Amino acid sequence: MNYKIVIAYDGTTFGGWQVQPNAPTIQAKIEEKLLILFKRPITIVGSGRTDAGVHALGQVAHFHFDGPLFPLHFLRSMNALLPQEIRLLSVESVPDEFHARFSAKGKIYHYHLAIDPIVLPFNRLYCYHPRGRLDIERMKRAAPYFIGTHDFTTFANTGGDNERPIKTIWRLDLVDEPGGVRFEFEGDGFLYKMVRNIVGTLIACGHSKVDPDEIPSLLLAKNRQEAFAAAPPQGLFLVKVLY
Amino acid sequence: MNYKIVIAYDGTTFGGWQVQPNAPTIQAKIEEKLLILFKRPITIVGSGRTDAGVHALGQVAHFHFDGPLFPLHFLRSMNALLPQEIRLLSVESVPDEFHARFSAKGKIYHYHLAIDPIVLPFNRLYCYHPRGRLDIERMKRAAPYFIGTHDFTTFANTGGDNERPIKTIWRLDLVDEPGGVRFEFEGDGFLYKMVRNIVGTLIACGHSKVDPDEIPSLLLAKNRQEAFAAAPPQGLFLVKVLY
Repeated sequence: MNYKIVIAYDGTTFGGWQVQPNAPTIQAKIEEKLLILFKRPITIVGSGRTDAGVHALGQVAHFHFDGPLFPLHFLRSMNALLPQEIRLLSVESVPDEFHARFSAKGKIYHYHLAIDPIVLPFNRLYCYHPRGRLDIERMKRAAPYFIGTHDFTTFANTGGDNERPIKTIWRLDLVDEPGGVRFEFEGDGFLYKMVRNIVGTLIACGHSKVDPDEIPSLLLAKNRQEAFAAAPPQGLFLVKVLY
Repeated sequence: MNYKIVIAYDGTTFGGWQVQPNAPTIQAKIEEKLLILFKRPITIVGSGRTDAGVHALGQVAHFHFDGPLFPLHFLRSMNALLPQEIRLLSVESVPDEFHARFSAKGKIYHYHLAIDPIVLPFNRLYCYHPRGRLDIERMKRAAPYFIGTHDFTTFANTGGDNERPIKTIWRLDLVDEPGGVRFEFEGDGFLYKMVRNIVGTLIACGHSKVDPDEIPSLLLAKNRQEAFAAAPPQGLFLVKVLY
C-alpha cells in the first residue's frame, strides 16, 4: 500500500526536511518514529526539501507499507511519539503511482515580513524583520513582474534540481497582516531557494536598492549574481502541495 | 520622573515575572538592561507577578528615573538590548503617584484551550491541550457562576497577597478560536493562581467531573481543597492592565 501523509512542522530547531548527517531533520525524525511503530525501516519521500529553519503547514510525503494501518490510530500513535514541533495532520491510502514529489502540480508558500518597529515575542520565530524603512508600495509594484512563466535561474541557488529552470508563478500577492505583510506564492514549482531569493529582491525594492521596473531584466539575465540576498528562512512556510 | 512601561513577553523560558534567585525572570532581565542603559540600578514595580511559563501581551510596570528619557530612543535601545522574548511596547511619563500595582483598576487575562485532537506546532507553547473529550457546552454553562463579586478563596493558592479575597469578575466569556476556545477574564483583581484555578475547574466541568451547578457551593466553601487542579501556565496571557 502507498500512503500519503500531510505534515506541519516548526523548522526552528531542525536542519531542514531532508535526512543528512550531523543535524536532526524532519524526515529523519518521522522515519525514526515509523521504525518504532512498524518495527521495520520505512523511507518517506517528501514533496521537496525545505531548508533549515523553514516551517510547514502542509508538507506532503508518501511511503509504502504493506501491513494494516488504521488512520486514526496511526495519527494518534505517531503524534504521541513525535516531538510537538512535528505533527502529522492526515494520512490516506493513495494509488501506487502517487509520488509526493513527481505527482505534485503546484505549491503554495507564504513568507511573513514584519514591518512594525516592534515584533511581538510570539511571532519572533515565524517572520523576518528587516532593518530600515520599507516602501510597501514599491514592493507591491514589483511583485507582478514575477507572475507568469519565466526562466527563474537568476532566483535559484545552486545545489538544487534546477535543470528545468522555467517555472510558472500563478499568483504572488502581498497581503496585509497584523504587524506586517505576507507574500503569498502559488506556482507549478519552485527552484532551490527561489521563494527566499524573490522575497529578498522584493525587500531590496522596498529599500529602494533596485527599481521595480528592473525586475524583467533581472529575470532575463539568468544570473544568480543579479538577485539580492535571499530572505532568511524563519519567515517561510510551505502551506500546501497541490496534486 | 515616574515612567510607565507596557511589556509583552513569552514566558516559556523564564521563571516568571518577579526577581528571584536561581531563575532568569522578566523583571530581572529588564532591570539588567536598564542598568546598562542608565548606568545606575533601577527597580521596576510590576502590576503583579506572573508565574513561570505565563505570557503577557500587556504587563505594566513603573520606575523612577531623573535623567532625560526620549521615548522612541529608549524603546529602541531597550529592545535592542533585551532578548526577543521580551519587548517593551511603550513608555510614558506618569504622575508621581502612579503605581503599577496599587493604581490598577482591573485586569484582562486570556486562557487558550486547545480542543482539536492535533495542536499545530506554532501554538504548542501558547495553549493547553487537555486529554480526553471536553464538553464545551458544560463549560459555557459553568462560567457565568464565576461572574460577579465573590470570595474567591477556593480558587486562590497560598503564597500570594490573598488578604482581601473578595474580587469582582466583570466578564468571563468563552470565545471560539481556531483549534479551540479562549477564556476571556476581566475583573477588578485576581488572587494568586486564581485564573488558572478557575480554568482548571471549568475543564473539570468539561470532563464531567463536576456539575456546573455545583460552582456556587465551591465558592461558598472558601476552601482551596474544593477546587480542581490548576490549568498549566502556558495557556495564560496577561492581556491588559486597566487604570
